[in-house]
Amino acid sequence: MAKPRVGLILSGCGVQDGSEIQEATITLLELARAGAEAVCMAPDAPQVRVVDHLHGKEAAESRNMLRESARIARGSIRDIREVRAADLEALILPGGYGAATNLSDFASAGEACALQPDVERLLVEMHAAGKPIGAMCIAPPLVARALAKKGIRTRVTIGTDRGTAERVEKMGAEHVDCPAGEIVIDEANRIVSTPAYMLAQGIAEAAEGITKLVREVIRFAR
Amino acid sequence: MAKPRVGLILSGCGVQDGSEIQEATITLLELARAGAEAVCMAPDAPQVRVVDHLHGKEAAESRNMLRESARIARGSIRDIREVRAADLEALILPGGYGAATNLSDFASAGEACALQPDVERLLVEMHAAGKPIGAMCIAPPLVARALAKKGIRTRVTIGTDRGTAERVEKMGAEHVDCPAGEIVIDEANRIVSTPAYMLAQGIAEAAEGITKLVREVIRFAR
Repeated sequence: MAKPRVGLILSGCGVQDGSEIQEATITLLELARAGAEAVCMAPDAPQVRVVDHLHGKEAAESRNMLRESARIARGSIRDIREVRAADLEALILPGGYGAATNLSDFASAGEACALQPDVERLLVEMHAAGKPIGAMCIAPPLVARALAKKGIRTRVTIGTDRGTAERVEKMGAEHVDCPAGEIVIDEANRIVSTPAYMLAQGIAEAAEGITKLVREVIRFAR
Repeated sequence: MAKPRVGLILSGCGVQDGSEIQEATITLLELARAGAEAVCMAPDAPQVRVVDHLHGKEAAESRNMLRESARIARGSIRDIREVRAADLEALILPGGYGAATNLSDFASAGEACALQPDVERLLVEMHAAGKPIGAMCIAPPLVARALAKKGIRTRVTIGTDRGTAERVEKMGAEHVDCPAGEIVIDEANRIVSTPAYMLAQGIAEAAEGITKLVREVIRFAR
């Protein structure tokens, strides 16, 4: 079989205003080790905010999701608008606060959140095509919401945070508590999720769950 | 023995104007797996330039090395000015063009390059204390230069690029050709180097050499 092409939806470059860099990088590493081809993508649109990661304060700056995400991808990245499910065998969403602010407004709107239109389109296209989706950290609610709007009840984890888990349940999805090094598999919908930095105490613990997620997603894709 | 503390000198967040994100992240991951504590640091000073990583063009922006490096380190980072060799058991320099433009002017000045003063100080302090130093990608010339100025002839690799290798030799160091998945060890000076993205065709290949480098540095540190 040819190398499975696995899409990675990024939202910037940094845990507080974009994609969580370590989660995205470990995903790229494990995809390469599993013999898959990563297809990085992001919306060509401004981030909702820019945060100074040294002081944790909002900065008076504007940054573009696609250009910042290109830092993680070493320039090899596509505008998500141009990506179709037919281009991919699987899709993975790393976390980082950008998933809840740039790729959706989950951070402010919770269960009633709206998704960035191409993110929603691609999630629905992938599911309709029977192709697997992986999501980590704060990204699983995006998958749950996009598919709940189509009447599909998914089974995901964001770890153990009660407030976030309740919002996921209110969407019409099932939330399953899960430790950082483990994954939750929704066999019927081919969705794999892991808490990553929602729970992980360090990079090695986050990598444990992400490695398992990548392997399951690739297994589904083959 | 307590967890060895291993310093990581960062220069921004992105291969073209700062630290190579994947190299830095893989180093953090392998340090954690080896039971070491990473101590990220960067100079609190502006980057020499900002590059749009999507188009590869210089952008009319200013960014601070310490604040941008904090994205990779998830906020856990120190101003290099405050870090002494006594605080560390080992020191590692990831690559990225920032090593040759922000931490030194090697990109423009070659063998006669000047180093950022705290980077030079810490390299010399570490060597004088008999503590190991790891350097990857385009960072080994910084180690070679700092120690050559003290009359110490080091043995390092930047891969196989002839022009860069010649500049390293002109500094008074020995350059050894090396493939991406391997390392060069200078036993006498406790310096380990690997080409990483100077040669690697992908993240898995870069990770091979970086993993070996981290293990050797930790071995020296214990």
